[in-house]
Amino acid sequence: MQVYSRTNTSAKQLAEKLGTPFTTDLQEINKNADLVIISVSDDALEGIVQNIVAGDSLVIHTSGPVGMEILSKRFLNSGVIYPLQTFSKNREADFSEIPLCIEASSPENLSKLRSFAESLSAKVVEIGSDERQFLHLAAVFACNFSNYMYRVADEILRGSNLDFDLLRPLILETAMKVQEMKPVEAQTGPALRRDRKTMGKHIEMLKKYPEWQKIYEIMNKGILEMD
Amino acid sequence: MQVYSRTNTSAKQLAEKLGTPFTTDLQEINKNADLVIISVSDDALEGIVQNIVAGDSLVIHTSGPVGMEILSKRFLNSGVIYPLQTFSKNREADFSEIPLCIEASSPENLSKLRSFAESLSAKVVEIGSDERQFLHLAAVFACNFSNYMYRVADEILRGSNLDFDLLRPLILETAMKVQEMKPVEAQTGPALRRDRKTMGKHIEMLKKYPEWQKIYEIMNKGILEMD
Repeated sequence: MQVYSRTNTSAKQLAEKLGTPFTTDLQEINKNADLVIISVSDDALEGIVQNIVAGDSLVIHTSGPVGMEILSKRFLNSGVIYPLQTFSKNREADFSEIPLCIEASSPENLSKLRSFAESLSAKVVEIGSDERQFLHLAAVFACNFSNYMYRVADEILRGSNLDFDLLRPLILETAMKVQEMKPVEAQTGPALRRDRKTMGKHIEMLKKYPEWQKIYEIMNKGILEMD
Repeated sequence: MQVYSRTNTSAKQLAEKLGTPFTTDLQEINKNADLVIISVSDDALEGIVQNIVAGDSLVIHTSGPVGMEILSKRFLNSGVIYPLQTFSKNREADFSEIPLCIEASSPENLSKLRSFAESLSAKVVEIGSDERQFLHLAAVFACNFSNYMYRVADEILRGSNLDFDLLRPLILETAMKVQEMKPVEAQTGPALRRDRKTMGKHIEMLKKYPEWQKIYEIMNKGILEMD
């Protein structure tokens, strides 16, 4: 129906794809909208919420860590659709596979959001603000920290002039394994085998990188203790 | 040609698949073998090497962290084939996709190992003992530690009665992204966005788990500093 963005370029880009009008002025937002989706960075959310006039439109945000009450204390009808996925520009996401976590301020709003969400994805689950925050925290470990582990691995390889390509099949298989198993069953490595000789050698090899040495130690400690 | 294992059951199981004789006595190993593959846990390797009589057979091991010299100081012809992958029982591995890192004690042995390795995988690379040890260390970060992050995520979800299934598409996409991009380009999350509000809330949410709190802090510090 209408696209808003702070910048003309972004607003126009999306509006052209959708064939709708666009605006860069929050005051011009269409008050007859059934649904207003605020999908901005968590830091920008508060400012947008303060300045939107939404009437009785259902207003939702798409943030994992932000509770619904930021909306419900200001709007008659509010809710959340949190897509649990990592998005990067230049990479198409298959939305039908993405879990959409929904929450709403009333059963009517929940039912509206469910219909909308089910038109986008086959995996729609109702999750309250508190649980969603823990889900987001878990996602930081599973996604952001895993990716950081790939980066450290890439840096270690670079130190020996080895190509990151060597690790790609291993990384994919590591993720594939837990599509079927639980991660506790998929664990491998020197710490699980209690191979202290290899762990000692690795600590020595990391002596130029005290931060990674610390990560190595704390991870192995965790793996040893969790079993 | 022949299978050896410490236990009768394991030796027999593999020998039946291959249609070969088997033994549980190292002294009975066939001295006419072209190739002897010692594929055991790193801890057991030394003991096997001490007790094998191999004549002029080419003797190899398959370990990432162990150097070739453990073999070359004892056998005329030696080498390594290190398959860079994570193996779990009950999960079939597609060997043709697994990078095989080869090293040998002479150009002749290297050429023999290359032919053999190329019959198993399309990705055969020559890598010396020192580089292989760094590759193995990088693999510990990329695979074992990533999987440990999945486990922590699973535990966090369990604390809120949420199903690990919710995270599976995210984990797969995180690994898929770095099949094309470099991990530095694929990084997302609160630390990358410098979202201190969310990071502060997460630290608070982890107060019951001091070890994971430490991991959270050290990972975010790493992500912030690496950029």
